[in-house]
Amino acid sequence: MSKGITSQEENYSQWYTDIVKKAGLADHSAVRGCMVIKPTGYAIWENMQKQLDKMFKETGHVNAYFPLFVPKSLFEAEEKNAEGFAKECAVVTHYRLKGDPNEKGKLMVDPEAKLEEELIVRPTSEAIIWNTYRDWIKSHRDLPLLINQWANVVRWEMRTRLFMRTAEFLWQEGHTAHSNEKEAIEETERMQDIYATFAEEYMAMPVIKGKKTESERFAGATETYTIEALMQDGKALQAGTSHFLGQNFAKAFDVKFTDTNNKESYVWSTSWGVSTRLMGGLIMTHSDDNGLVLPPKLAPTQVVIVPIPKANGEINEVVDKIVDQLKAKNITAVYDNDKKSRPGFKFAENELKGIPVRIGVGKRDLENNQVEVARRDNLTKEMVNIDGIAEYIDQLLEDIQTNLFEKAKKFRDDRITKVDSMEEFESVLESKGGFLFAHWDGTADTEQKIKELTKATIRCIPMNMEIEEGKCVLTGKPSKQRVLFAKAY
Amino acid sequence: MSKGITSQEENYSQWYTDIVKKAGLADHSAVRGCMVIKPTGYAIWENMQKQLDKMFKETGHVNAYFPLFVPKSLFEAEEKNAEGFAKECAVVTHYRLKGDPNEKGKLMVDPEAKLEEELIVRPTSEAIIWNTYRDWIKSHRDLPLLINQWANVVRWEMRTRLFMRTAEFLWQEGHTAHSNEKEAIEETERMQDIYATFAEEYMAMPVIKGKKTESERFAGATETYTIEALMQDGKALQAGTSHFLGQNFAKAFDVKFTDTNNKESYVWSTSWGVSTRLMGGLIMTHSDDNGLVLPPKLAPTQVVIVPIPKANGEINEVVDKIVDQLKAKNITAVYDNDKKSRPGFKFAENELKGIPVRIGVGKRDLENNQVEVARRDNLTKEMVNIDGIAEYIDQLLEDIQTNLFEKAKKFRDDRITKVDSMEEFESVLESKGGFLFAHWDGTADTEQKIKELTKATIRCIPMNMEIEEGKCVLTGKPSKQRVLFAKAY
Repeated sequence: MSKGITSQEENYSQWYTDIVKKAGLADHSAVRGCMVIKPTGYAIWENMQKQLDKMFKETGHVNAYFPLFVPKSLFEAEEKNAEGFAKECAVVTHYRLKGDPNEKGKLMVDPEAKLEEELIVRPTSEAIIWNTYRDWIKSHRDLPLLINQWANVVRWEMRTRLFMRTAEFLWQEGHTAHSNEKEAIEETERMQDIYATFAEEYMAMPVIKGKKTESERFAGATETYTIEALMQDGKALQAGTSHFLGQNFAKAFDVKFTDTNNKESYVWSTSWGVSTRLMGGLIMTHSDDNGLVLPPKLAPTQVVIVPIPKANGEINEVVDKIVDQLKAKNITAVYDNDKKSRPGFKFAENELKGIPVRIGVGKRDLENNQVEVARRDNLTKEMVNIDGIAEYIDQLLEDIQTNLFEKAKKFRDDRITKVDSMEEFESVLESKGGFLFAHWDGTADTEQKIKELTKATIRCIPMNMEIEEGKCVLTGKPSKQRVLFAKAY
Repeated sequence: MSKGITSQEENYSQWYTDIVKKAGLADHSAVRGCMVIKPTGYAIWENMQKQLDKMFKETGHVNAYFPLFVPKSLFEAEEKNAEGFAKECAVVTHYRLKGDPNEKGKLMVDPEAKLEEELIVRPTSEAIIWNTYRDWIKSHRDLPLLINQWANVVRWEMRTRLFMRTAEFLWQEGHTAHSNEKEAIEETERMQDIYATFAEEYMAMPVIKGKKTESERFAGATETYTIEALMQDGKALQAGTSHFLGQNFAKAFDVKFTDTNNKESYVWSTSWGVSTRLMGGLIMTHSDDNGLVLPPKLAPTQVVIVPIPKANGEINEVVDKIVDQLKAKNITAVYDNDKKSRPGFKFAENELKGIPVRIGVGKRDLENNQVEVARRDNLTKEMVNIDGIAEYIDQLLEDIQTNLFEKAKKFRDDRITKVDSMEEFESVLESKGGFLFAHWDGTADTEQKIKELTKATIRCIPMNMEIEEGKCVLTGKPSKQRVLFAKAY
């Protein structure tokens, strides 16, 4: 079967779009820049949500829901934040349509129904949330306030890309309030850790934890913590951010609390989020020219069972037993016994969809009490005895999960290159891409110049990598530690 | 403790708002007509979602996500639907803000960033979804298509009420496509059944299943199926609707499929939804002047344990054991051992929040190996032996669930009154409210006149109640069956 997927080598960007569309994950919509998340894609996102939500709740967070709209006067209260998002805001100006007198059956915006104050469709919710927190926080007993929201947000984009950059996307945004700076910074770091754990243990996507430079910070943040992943084309992906907001929003929205000494102070805060962008990261970490590759922990279907050449009573009976045994181990298995397609077609389809394990059940194999087990990650097959098949598959899914992570980690580690001159910087960037571990003099000016010269930006000042002093790769001025540069999504 | 809740008798409407606010379920926001769903309220909604989602998936539905915005030209394609929602549409006309040259630090809508075509914030998603289905459905093999979406929608409202009627609300909307009429009608009925089961078994809220009259149908539907509940003030609540859409949307969006005989036909469809309005129904079915009353199956916290008069080592030890035993039975229990509040305050607080069961643990009772168990539903208490406490509580939660339903059902059944004249109609409506089971001649005109005379509307043509012929309560013309009138939310 020709799947019609452009190869990675030929055109990585087209390969990505082909995978997203052909595997049924998402599609473009009639609304400029907005995507439709199709059932298979949404099922993966649901699995992500379920695990993240669990991790948030285990660390004391609760969910709530705040309005989609932000009145313009609130939106502009924290000036840096407002300035940072102003150019991407969808604005509601009217609240009614009426029949168009010039065209029967058509509607027009009713000019009489103009809003007194325009409403911004939230690009992020700090403003509306901090305006609410003012009423909720009075005393130290109201703190910490640890709230998360699952929501859609809109950031108008001219150049979009399914999952990676869309005008509307789905995300979670945590917004916490604390009585002191130390606790707020601990929270910021805790959430960065949770994101890193989720990325590595569930998405099997290795990430580097670090802090953003000032120019790459979230608008309105005092410090932005990030996790950075590396895609197969050598470009970096910012996969999740956690912001220490200092007292910026508390001051903009006048949120104060009375401490144990009856003294009034501004609240300290954080915000943190991951979005459907993670779907893009997942795809570009593991998938190949045959289609999607999914880590078992996030795959909506973990095992597919295909009869060879076609289903019959005996095969059905064996498959039913296998499915039951897998279910008992909480493994999701689907029996693909559609009679209209041949096994070869099904194999290709299931490969395309990234189902981690395929079990082929043939009549002759049954005589030997065996089935054929194929792995999606490395495309190997072997014959496995039916007795104990569930234990075997259970272990295999774990092995696949580990293998995907190790493989991605090796790929990433091989692409962290120490460079000590601009010549080296540009040549490595050109030849193998990935992260360039280079000295930087700490100025926004140098950061900007390097970006102009190479299109690489500082992805982060890493937190868990060796620290050594040196000289800036561009200016030769002193540098306290190397930072990670890369071209990025 | 004075909870500051207006009594139901004094002012039911104010009582409702007091409960919503004081129990921490929701609050008004800075955005006209939009609410903030607070953590406690959201946790109940999450429990509703979890169960509904499970029921949808068990009946073969999958989740997906479609854009928030609908271009005006798509929105108006199904004319009845468009006409029905036109007056409630929030409209995005611009996509950028810029600095206001007249006021430093303020923003203004950038007039240069006007959209070529206005975008409607979805009041419901038929239009955008059916425009997408055109690409997804080609052959009978693509059918049925059984998709659900969890989303926010916006319907501009002038007079709002927390949960019951807000400009933005959260809901799920199912949108299915079928190859024939019969199957689509079966789906419509299946989803009405699921809503009824959910309302009765989880919300403990009895409902009547029926069909809407033509004038009360969803805009664009051929038939609207509904479940109708009765609130404590004698007003009805439409709690969920399931629409048979015929081929209306398929025709408006040109969605055809090739059947097994290679013939092209328009697709048949349904849509169905329930929203955060259910939260209002839940509150107004069970709660009282002491606060919220929650059915155990939806209560975020099912059991609260309070030390009396205050916690000590011995009490903590006993409580820890009880909590472990409850957890083993999947019962959510919280130990309220805050030292700053006295037991009386805690009792009142936990009552206000509707926690179904309270266990009081006192030193003297422990000597007798007993604890005090208090029920929120009927406010009774009894001493219970600690041995086997988890089994006792498990059974008690079931009893409370059943009792709440039975109580609400009796209340509702007592308020279905057969009336045979307008005089009787108006007098019963005035004296006890509730449902009036009356004959109607089947015309929209009579329906409208009765509404003008009494403010009561036809809630539904019931599906499971006795059918007898008679004469219209207003016109005396022949009637095939009685229908249910009520004043409604």
